[in-house]
Amino acid sequence: MALALEPGQLSLQNEAYFEKCREKLGFVPNVLTSYADDDAKLSAFAAFYNDLMLAPSGLSKLEREMIAVAVSSVNRCYYCLAAHGAAVRQLSGDPVLGELLVMNYRAAELSARHRAMLDFAVKLTETPHLIGEEDRAGLRRAGFAERDIWDIGAVASFYNMSNRMASAVDMRPNAAYHGQAR
Amino acid sequence: MALALEPGQLSLQNEAYFEKCREKLGFVPNVLTSYADDDAKLSAFAAFYNDLMLAPSGLSKLEREMIAVAVSSVNRCYYCLAAHGAAVRQLSGDPVLGELLVMNYRAAELSARHRAMLDFAVKLTETPHLIGEEDRAGLRRAGFAERDIWDIGAVASFYNMSNRMASAVDMRPNAAYHGQAR
Amino acid sequence: MALALEPGQLSLQNEAYFEKCREKLGFVPNVLTSYADDDAKLSAFAAFYNDLMLAPSGLSKLEREMIAVAVSSVNRCYYCLAAHGAAVRQLSGDPVLGELLVMNYRAAELSARHRAMLDFAVKLTETPHLIGEEDRAGLRRAGFAERDIWDIGAVASFYNMSNRMASAVDMRPNAAYHGQAR
Amino acid sequence: MALALEPGQLSLQNEAYFEKCREKLGFVPNVLTSYADDDAKLSAFAAFYNDLMLAPSGLSKLEREMIAVAVSSVNRCYYCLAAHGAAVRQLSGDPVLGELLVMNYRAAELSARHRAMLDFAVKLTETPHLIGEEDRAGLRRAGFAERDIWDIGAVASFYNMSNRMASAVDMRPNAAYHGQAR
Amino acid sequence: MALALEPGQLSLQNEAYFEKCREKLGFVPNVLTSYADDDAKLSAFAAFYNDLMLAPSGLSKLEREMIAVAVSSVNRCYYCLAAHGAAVRQLSGDPVLGELLVMNYRAAELSARHRAMLDFAVKLTETPHLIGEEDRAGLRRAGFAERDIWDIGAVASFYNMSNRMASAVDMRPNAAYHGQAR
Amino acid sequence: MALALEPGQLSLQNEAYFEKCREKLGFVPNVLTSYADDDAKLSAFAAFYNDLMLAPSGLSKLEREMIAVAVSSVNRCYYCLAAHGAAVRQLSGDPVLGELLVMNYRAAELSARHRAMLDFAVKLTETPHLIGEEDRAGLRRAGFAERDIWDIGAVASFYNMSNRMASAVDMRPNAAYHGQAR
Repeated sequence: MALALEPGQLSLQNEAYFEKCREKLGFVPNVLTSYADDDAKLSAFAAFYNDLMLAPSGLSKLEREMIAVAVSSVNRCYYCLAAHGAAVRQLSGDPVLGELLVMNYRAAELSARHRAMLDFAVKLTETPHLIGEEDRAGLRRAGFAERDIWDIGAVASFYNMSNRMASAVDMRPNAAYHGQAR
Repeated sequence: MALALEPGQLSLQNEAYFEKCREKLGFVPNVLTSYADDDAKLSAFAAFYNDLMLAPSGLSKLEREMIAVAVSSVNRCYYCLAAHGAAVRQLSGDPVLGELLVMNYRAAELSARHRAMLDFAVKLTETPHLIGEEDRAGLRRAGFAERDIWDIGAVASFYNMSNRMASAVDMRPNAAYHGQAR
Repeated sequence: MALALEPGQLSLQNEAYFEKCREKLGFVPNVLTSYADDDAKLSAFAAFYNDLMLAPSGLSKLEREMIAVAVSSVNRCYYCLAAHGAAVRQLSGDPVLGELLVMNYRAAELSARHRAMLDFAVKLTETPHLIGEEDRAGLRRAGFAERDIWDIGAVASFYNMSNRMASAVDMRPNAAYHGQAR
Repeated sequence: MALALEPGQLSLQNEAYFEKCREKLGFVPNVLTSYADDDAKLSAFAAFYNDLMLAPSGLSKLEREMIAVAVSSVNRCYYCLAAHGAAVRQLSGDPVLGELLVMNYRAAELSARHRAMLDFAVKLTETPHLIGEEDRAGLRRAGFAERDIWDIGAVASFYNMSNRMASAVDMRPNAAYHGQAR
Repeated sequence: MALALEPGQLSLQNEAYFEKCREKLGFVPNVLTSYADDDAKLSAFAAFYNDLMLAPSGLSKLEREMIAVAVSSVNRCYYCLAAHGAAVRQLSGDPVLGELLVMNYRAAELSARHRAMLDFAVKLTETPHLIGEEDRAGLRRAGFAERDIWDIGAVASFYNMSNRMASAVDMRPNAAYHGQAR
Repeated sequence: MALALEPGQLSLQNEAYFEKCREKLGFVPNVLTSYADDDAKLSAFAAFYNDLMLAPSGLSKLEREMIAVAVSSVNRCYYCLAAHGAAVRQLSGDPVLGELLVMNYRAAELSARHRAMLDFAVKLTETPHLIGEEDRAGLRRAGFAERDIWDIGAVASFYNMSNRMASAVDMRPNAAYHGQAR
């Protein structure tokens, strides 16, 4: 049972943001409505999220979604696996890849770049206190620049927050995600 | 060895923010300078962080710092333990409390409210997939309202991000923290 | 890369079994072809499997498939999650239930009977040495008879074998499973 | 307290099997009597078990028993450690080896072949989702053929089932095992 | 391969102690010879050990040996399981009890007193940071006095040292232990 | 709430020992008063401890204290972290080093010798059953002699005892430690 917070008054900017979601996706993702009892928190979350997942980066949007799913699989987050699993299926055009990352990314046939990227993200998720210089060196050997390492770390870290927030307040994914891009 | 990202051009707003840090704290926390190669990321992070830790809430600022330290202790994050351990010592006026939360919060003599709050934050950190309705019910029995549960979840989740970001790029705490409020 | 064992000569009985699979399912499940280099092993496995999953029992076929998926989720077995996730979607007519059991069965809204059944199966999977009389008593309180407890134990135990066999030899699920009953 | 299932009517074939056990071992192993309330399940289990442990294989019978004990030690299965520990003592003529595999196989002075075999079996037991191509390559380097890798995987997987079944229904080993071949 | 430390010159007192071992046990336990390159360390260890295991206590000598085995089973210490398993068999006159504590003490049919005692010892071994007042209260309910709680804690803690020392330097048990009191 | 054992009659030798503590440290460490209800146990503990931490060794006193803190950090022992963290700050003249070892020794910039020493101590603490010849070989490569390996093992093992004893009876550190050598 999700927390019962009353939706608050949205600013014009956030009303417009929700409207844009409805146009593009057909619905407002439940993670956003869950923040909607507090307009300032919604704005801060949305700005942070949009920079992370959509701003220019050495990582493609698909790569950022792949990290999201691999991390959420470790944390067994229902909300994020449903939403970002759909995104991987959509962006990759490969419905099986989305499934595989939900189940066990090690069973997927990944490029060396993607395997290194997900190995780092998963180690950072499971045992952050063991991450050291040799792990960053591994990313460099796989071709990632310093800024890319930051971005891999930032996306993996963000979903460690988001997975836990979803569990803390029992966020439920929009039903639409399940059937997308199968 | 921390990532070597070149500091970028800061906006006037962020320049002013750094200046305010220097006035109030005597230094700019290294977490902020680590974001300073990308002004947009710095702004998004700072807005998100300041809402979380400083905005009005059913949780006091000390309580939010206590959660930060208990979570960072599980993840063994050097940066966050140094910085937020200092904050607990300062806000509580109890240097031993700061130490205890770094070492093992279960050894501290806490009120039932604080024990319930930290038990939830630590379970959310260690096994987010096991958090369920009975855990939220436990917080309600300890006197927390729905909005407070959100805030406990949000602070605990944030430090699960922040701890990992610090590990990913090897952030180092400012030397000033260690001696503060002993 | 799966083991490269040469398919052997099948007995008439096993040829007929494969033919029946092709008729009913449209394909022979890869787990069966993986045993097909040794007719005796294939026969022993098929007999054991069919008794377990299809013979009369106090557990419905859907319930046995639910246990298969919950156990395979703990062990992160790609083959079994793909194949038995499809079976749960099909038998339940509820595509979301299949997804949920793959991701985190605790997030599903289950009857008390099903929650008790899966809690037992997952504890038996994760920490078999901690299973004791109080766990069996819990199943009895949820309405399960002695024979049902045996069957829950037997199905959960079987998938702990099957998950590991699939990992040991890198079994790959038939592509058909992914799109079934979405 | 073991499950109280009524023994059922045995087929002539299974009566003969029990009689052969009494002649050769002096008793019917309790695992078999525990299946004896359902003649079909007993037959399926016995056929599967006998193929696994007694059929021709690149692994000797002792090697299969060594895997059984190392896996059962991880899962702390009293029944299997008692029964298969006795088998290792008997087949090896080395009572200390049986003890060592029960306690910690890493303390035994094993050939490179046996160490590789048990390392694979134990990793497959503890973290099946981490088994990958490099683990199979390790077995090949230790001299194992493809079919042997299957057999190591099959025996290790089987005891992951059997250990859990014994825990689920609280199977108790026959008293005779304890003193055998000391 | 055990550490190769040269045996040193023993004091008369320690010579006499070794002689007494030979008379009573037929051999000097290897743990004592492993300390014999440094007479002062041997004296300190022997005094500490003998007070712990032999001095008057609310715990019988058998109970102290039971704790030794249960703790050593968690840590999978070959030396201590061989030596103290033999002691439990001898002191209890029950060879199966010794086996059971090596394999999984939860499978033994223990009095409420002994179950509480071993549950505390094992929790103290696995997760010392989680031991709290409620665990001590459990021991009091099972009839243990304050001094007994100290002694349970002291014996369990000692074997957490001893198990690790044996692993650190690869101590090997005297061959005589294996066959004793079967 | 610590155990309430009545202080007993101390021998002259132990009275003198306490007096010497008061002179040198300004107080008697609470670990010693906790043993003071039984003069024989106090003597045995003190003799064992003083040999371990103060006798000549290839390890400096600071190195022994570093091991004490790294081990106590794994076990999250409040008493030992407070007392030995202070000792590291004092002996090293580096207050930050003491903090770092409490929080996460892997974040400290250590010599290869010290990193190898603490890696061994921490592995011995977390997974003693996995310590093998290759771990001792690692210490030899870092320049440690056989006797040093014994001493590293002995100190790490001792704090695995001491941490658990402190948890078992809820020992509390003297208040004086917290402010020392900051």
